[in-house]
Amino acid sequence: MRDEDDAQVLRHDADGVTTLTLNRPKRFNALSEEMLEALAEAIGALADDAEVRCVVIVARGRAFCAGHDLKQMRASPDEAYYQRLFARCSALMQAIVALPVPVIARVQGIATAAGCQLVASCDLAVAARSARFAVSGINAGLFCSTPAVALSRNIGRKRAMEMLFTGEFIDADQARDWGLINRVADDEALDEALGELTASICAKSAVAVRTGKAMFHRQLALPLDEAYAYSGEVMARNMMAEDAGEGIDAFIEKRPPRWRHR
Amino acid sequence: MRDEDDAQVLRHDADGVTTLTLNRPKRFNALSEEMLEALAEAIGALADDAEVRCVVIVARGRAFCAGHDLKQMRASPDEAYYQRLFARCSALMQAIVALPVPVIARVQGIATAAGCQLVASCDLAVAARSARFAVSGINAGLFCSTPAVALSRNIGRKRAMEMLFTGEFIDADQARDWGLINRVADDEALDEALGELTASICAKSAVAVRTGKAMFHRQLALPLDEAYAYSGEVMARNMMAEDAGEGIDAFIEKRPPRWRHR
Amino acid sequence: MRDEDDAQVLRHDADGVTTLTLNRPKRFNALSEEMLEALAEAIGALADDAEVRCVVIVARGRAFCAGHDLKQMRASPDEAYYQRLFARCSALMQAIVALPVPVIARVQGIATAAGCQLVASCDLAVAARSARFAVSGINAGLFCSTPAVALSRNIGRKRAMEMLFTGEFIDADQARDWGLINRVADDEALDEALGELTASICAKSAVAVRTGKAMFHRQLALPLDEAYAYSGEVMARNMMAEDAGEGIDAFIEKRPPRWRHR
Repeated sequence: MRDEDDAQVLRHDADGVTTLTLNRPKRFNALSEEMLEALAEAIGALADDAEVRCVVIVARGRAFCAGHDLKQMRASPDEAYYQRLFARCSALMQAIVALPVPVIARVQGIATAAGCQLVASCDLAVAARSARFAVSGINAGLFCSTPAVALSRNIGRKRAMEMLFTGEFIDADQARDWGLINRVADDEALDEALGELTASICAKSAVAVRTGKAMFHRQLALPLDEAYAYSGEVMARNMMAEDAGEGIDAFIEKRPPRWRHR
Repeated sequence: MRDEDDAQVLRHDADGVTTLTLNRPKRFNALSEEMLEALAEAIGALADDAEVRCVVIVARGRAFCAGHDLKQMRASPDEAYYQRLFARCSALMQAIVALPVPVIARVQGIATAAGCQLVASCDLAVAARSARFAVSGINAGLFCSTPAVALSRNIGRKRAMEMLFTGEFIDADQARDWGLINRVADDEALDEALGELTASICAKSAVAVRTGKAMFHRQLALPLDEAYAYSGEVMARNMMAEDAGEGIDAFIEKRPPRWRHR
Repeated sequence: MRDEDDAQVLRHDADGVTTLTLNRPKRFNALSEEMLEALAEAIGALADDAEVRCVVIVARGRAFCAGHDLKQMRASPDEAYYQRLFARCSALMQAIVALPVPVIARVQGIATAAGCQLVASCDLAVAARSARFAVSGINAGLFCSTPAVALSRNIGRKRAMEMLFTGEFIDADQARDWGLINRVADDEALDEALGELTASICAKSAVAVRTGKAMFHRQLALPLDEAYAYSGEVMARNMMAEDAGEGIDAFIEKRPPRWRHR
């Protein structure tokens, strides 16, 4: 168990699913400089890994992630230092969006501040019924500005502002009803709920999944006509992939597809 | 019943409501080249028709629309062909948005892939309780890229991504709770629910309805200040219309308005 | 009670909360030229007032606000006049967004047309269970174009279009479920619900709250990468404020913070 004690982030690969585990349970997996660096490195290593079908971000211990490491931040009261720290954190969140495969958060306990932002930055999220979410920096005099970027792109603006100005927690059912997460499971059934999502994605063609991840985020930022021009080109290319031919033939012949690119 | 067998799309006009019926029930009203052309032509013919107050898109048979015609697509494995096909489909969806009057989808059975996109592209939608919605191309190795454009402009992004990556169906209640459709009715009461919407719109001033349709979509794409500058000009012009004067006078005098432009 | 009879808008300051009261209950607090001017003046006076922690917009009488003064509008049937009127109203709505502190609407009775827009333009809103919301201009031949700008930035587009084309009311629970308002309270508990929100905001650091209000709205309009670059700079500056240091120290030491900038 040496590694388990040492590494900030653990990586485990099985059946196309890469699981990255935040491994500072005693620190509530705070996003210290070291954790940010380790997580960015782990994410970066996946960008060109053709074997990966989807990524799961999980956390050891009672909390998913409590946001930045406030003690460490207070030890360097320097604006340039903070600029670099938040730039690094923002780069990590954008690297999750830019990864070629879907990223799923598995949330237990609390996800606060940049921890809540991490959930919002993932493509999908499942949470234990006892999980809770907050952007609580405001309670410590620090408005959750960078978390607001991800949060306000997941949920309606009045709800985002209420969370940001009050710092109050919402529970998992509320988070699902608002669209911050996809599914809520009883605590003991959380891995089963996660497994359903990963199994569903892994059963698909890798070409199609990767096509979709990149396309989805890019088209969101475009005006309607440009979004259609772009997505039409992407879809025409997707049609030329072997997997699309096989998938459509299988659909027509009412048999399971045999993907070349699982 | 010859026409009913022949035409891809049937048109029926009554009391200001133009009903376009997808008429390939045995093919689940798939958007074949022929269907796309017929529907585009029918929509195009409405653009300058001052008699039309609102448009309803309905479908014969057990399904609303199962998306593209996959057999036909497989018969032309050519990227330039697919580009033209998706461009044509995207132009149709944008023509619905650009129509000067509201377009309402009436959904029974399944609405999948480009069929789900058709629902998302309409201004309003009512569905039978048994209706189901999916962007299921991913199951056949083809990510629903163009449907994603319309879908992600109707519902939250995590929900859109879940539908796109898993290909799973959501039922009508879920679709309403997420904002993809407006109303759900018991299957036998679907036409009544549709009739309430069309009657409400037809009771309004045509000038006001047409003003709103064009304005709504355009302002959505603008920054706040430009949206206000534009919408203020539109509203000032709307005030100069006879119907606005009559409507306001009627409101003040507590009597029903007599529209010039029904 | 002379002032109460005379002033269009009453101002009351207590414990950091500035309450602006719409004071034309017999006119359902319609946004006449005089009311728009008085409200714009009252909002403008708050822009540089460092004592204000949050603003509440309330209304006397049975209605929150019934929108523009239709009688007054009909008395000046002139397009240039309407342009100026809507420009003035739009400027007021944008001034609410631009205020450096959160603005909360307290809604009873009806909020219609520009009155509904006023609710949508506030950062937060609480409503009595009996409150109702509509953008009902369409019933008088006048599509609610400028209200649509604020409404469509609060709720999903199919819901916004349904409200705009039908002119129908939604109740308070519906408005909360769609994200137009934050909280619903029994009519007699409305002030308590409002008090919870204002107390929560007033307990925070003024620096953090003001940082957040400006940041939130600006980042919403930016692409993801620019939003992160901007919000990271804002957050680094926020960290240099005395209050952030004190707040974080207090958090670490598990004691209540003592804000310099309450």
